[in-house]
Amino acid sequence: MAEPRVVLYGVGYQGSLAARMLLERGVDIVGAIAQSDAKEGRDLGDVAGLGRTTGVIVRRDAAAVLSQSKPDIAVVAVTNPLPDHKPHLETCARAGVNAITISVESLYPWPSSPDIAEELDQVAKEHGVTITGTGFQDVFFVQMVADLMGAAHRIDRVVGRSVYDSDDGGPELARRFRIGTPAKLGGPSASTASRASAAPSSLGKTSLYALAAVTGLTVERVRSEHRIEIAAEPMKCKSLDRVVEPGQISGQTSIDRMFTREGVELVLEVTGQLAKPGMTGVTNDWTIHGDPTLKLITPEVPGDVGTCTQMINRIPDVISAEPGFITIDMLPPIRYRHSLHV
Amino acid sequence: MAEPRVVLYGVGYQGSLAARMLLERGVDIVGAIAQSDAKEGRDLGDVAGLGRTTGVIVRRDAAAVLSQSKPDIAVVAVTNPLPDHKPHLETCARAGVNAITISVESLYPWPSSPDIAEELDQVAKEHGVTITGTGFQDVFFVQMVADLMGAAHRIDRVVGRSVYDSDDGGPELARRFRIGTPAKLGGPSASTASRASAAPSSLGKTSLYALAAVTGLTVERVRSEHRIEIAAEPMKCKSLDRVVEPGQISGQTSIDRMFTREGVELVLEVTGQLAKPGMTGVTNDWTIHGDPTLKLITPEVPGDVGTCTQMINRIPDVISAEPGFITIDMLPPIRYRHSLHV
Repeated sequence: MAEPRVVLYGVGYQGSLAARMLLERGVDIVGAIAQSDAKEGRDLGDVAGLGRTTGVIVRRDAAAVLSQSKPDIAVVAVTNPLPDHKPHLETCARAGVNAITISVESLYPWPSSPDIAEELDQVAKEHGVTITGTGFQDVFFVQMVADLMGAAHRIDRVVGRSVYDSDDGGPELARRFRIGTPAKLGGPSASTASRASAAPSSLGKTSLYALAAVTGLTVERVRSEHRIEIAAEPMKCKSLDRVVEPGQISGQTSIDRMFTREGVELVLEVTGQLAKPGMTGVTNDWTIHGDPTLKLITPEVPGDVGTCTQMINRIPDVISAEPGFITIDMLPPIRYRHSLHV
Repeated sequence: MAEPRVVLYGVGYQGSLAARMLLERGVDIVGAIAQSDAKEGRDLGDVAGLGRTTGVIVRRDAAAVLSQSKPDIAVVAVTNPLPDHKPHLETCARAGVNAITISVESLYPWPSSPDIAEELDQVAKEHGVTITGTGFQDVFFVQMVADLMGAAHRIDRVVGRSVYDSDDGGPELARRFRIGTPAKLGGPSASTASRASAAPSSLGKTSLYALAAVTGLTVERVRSEHRIEIAAEPMKCKSLDRVVEPGQISGQTSIDRMFTREGVELVLEVTGQLAKPGMTGVTNDWTIHGDPTLKLITPEVPGDVGTCTQMINRIPDVISAEPGFITIDMLPPIRYRHSLHV
């Protein structure tokens, strides 16, 4: 039993949080990878804003860092969409290194990106390593909901509603959500404008697929809708450093409805929007409609920290798992790890 | 794959709920056992108030019912304290029948009743069957809390607070809690009076032991306190069919504090008391104090139904488990079962 040796793959906002948490837990960070030239050659403590040097130098050459440092696992926090994310997971696998990632789609990639999932599963198996996706959704959209469902005699519909501060996603998300642009550009309806924009993300749908897998339900079809949120009064957008005026887009909502062969409907509505005054953290409310009706509220979850903590608590599960692309339905439920020993 | 064949062991309030739910799920109830002469020889539908006959005749001779009907499992809902409960679980095991029970201490009997737990474990193993305890606590005090802990980087203290309507426990509980008796009988302090009375139950302590086992924490010691609740205004006690006057006992609270080697403190405060106006179901609030601080609320849980549903959803786990006294930390997390097929 020893603390795992970890490489940080990505030293942005989440990677920097992970650096702090891993060091506080006494974990040996044996390497750090960043994609930008600006980070290359600097001490991890400097890049991650830890207020001290760590002796770990951030490098751009991922394959070299992984092969030289021979870690037990790479903690991957880089670009999100799975097609862009795939080469990074592949680099880990080819270096013989397990990977835990917070890329949203990796929580359950089989239905949305079957080819990529299959390819990564193959390369992981060839090199005897595990790839797993986790994040905020693992506990809050999947495991706790699955548990609450365990107290039901009959379930008609499971409905989740979550609202997060879009500023947590930085300028990239603000631009993807078209925050601050007119809600009715050139006259199309809000709904058309919304369809024309990038979808809010696969967060909801992927989480529902994972929930169905964890609870043994058979998915028949999914219906997804998107909605733009419009500012009713001036709102501060921190990540774009500007004020969003009434009538401009203030966020986006995705609504996914999953229909299962067992007759249980799973619904998740996720809104990312500029925080209204008094909003603290992520709201996360679920209702199980059936016999009996059951409710779950986890108020004011810090979404950023709650994502990183789960990535870290999953480390022992991933190191111990069978090789392949192992989704959370194939792992034990996530647990607090006083120690990350395996 | 087939629906399990079930014997109802106990046809009181919970057993009757279980009868309804099992029949609604299409499960084959192949026998029913009751302890009272008044139920002997009557149809289960009559005893359980199902509004129809079932063809299953309630019998007092448990061993005979079990050996003649050869069920896959007995759903046990009889007397609660483990020493009184033990002979019933033993009867099931000796008949070669798995048992799932809602007796409170059976959720995790090892620390409080090691001899009984060991003896039942032995007899279960000898006969190749499984004994498991479940109930309201499985989802609400253990699994969901364990999951939420999975989103924490550092945990200092986990604090649960639950309040249930003592009338749900019927006249037996009302008398055990001394509801309606003077709070200061003969002059002792409330705290002394409380110690002299029966403890509110091992509900809290047993649940914390199960939570520690599920989350891999090592218990060092437990400190338990009891408190009586005193009516401030006249309150209706349905189960005793009387009004409790101000100054009389209206309920009891147990507070259990568990200290672990890992430095995580687990605290559960459970109050059973006469329902105040507007109180619906069981309140159940948890806070994880640490980094980050996390909260969980499951409002208005119907405690009676939520106990029975878990006993039923656990059936496939128990049938599939290894022989012995198998506590929930040794089983997969509880799940909603669209079908009870094994």
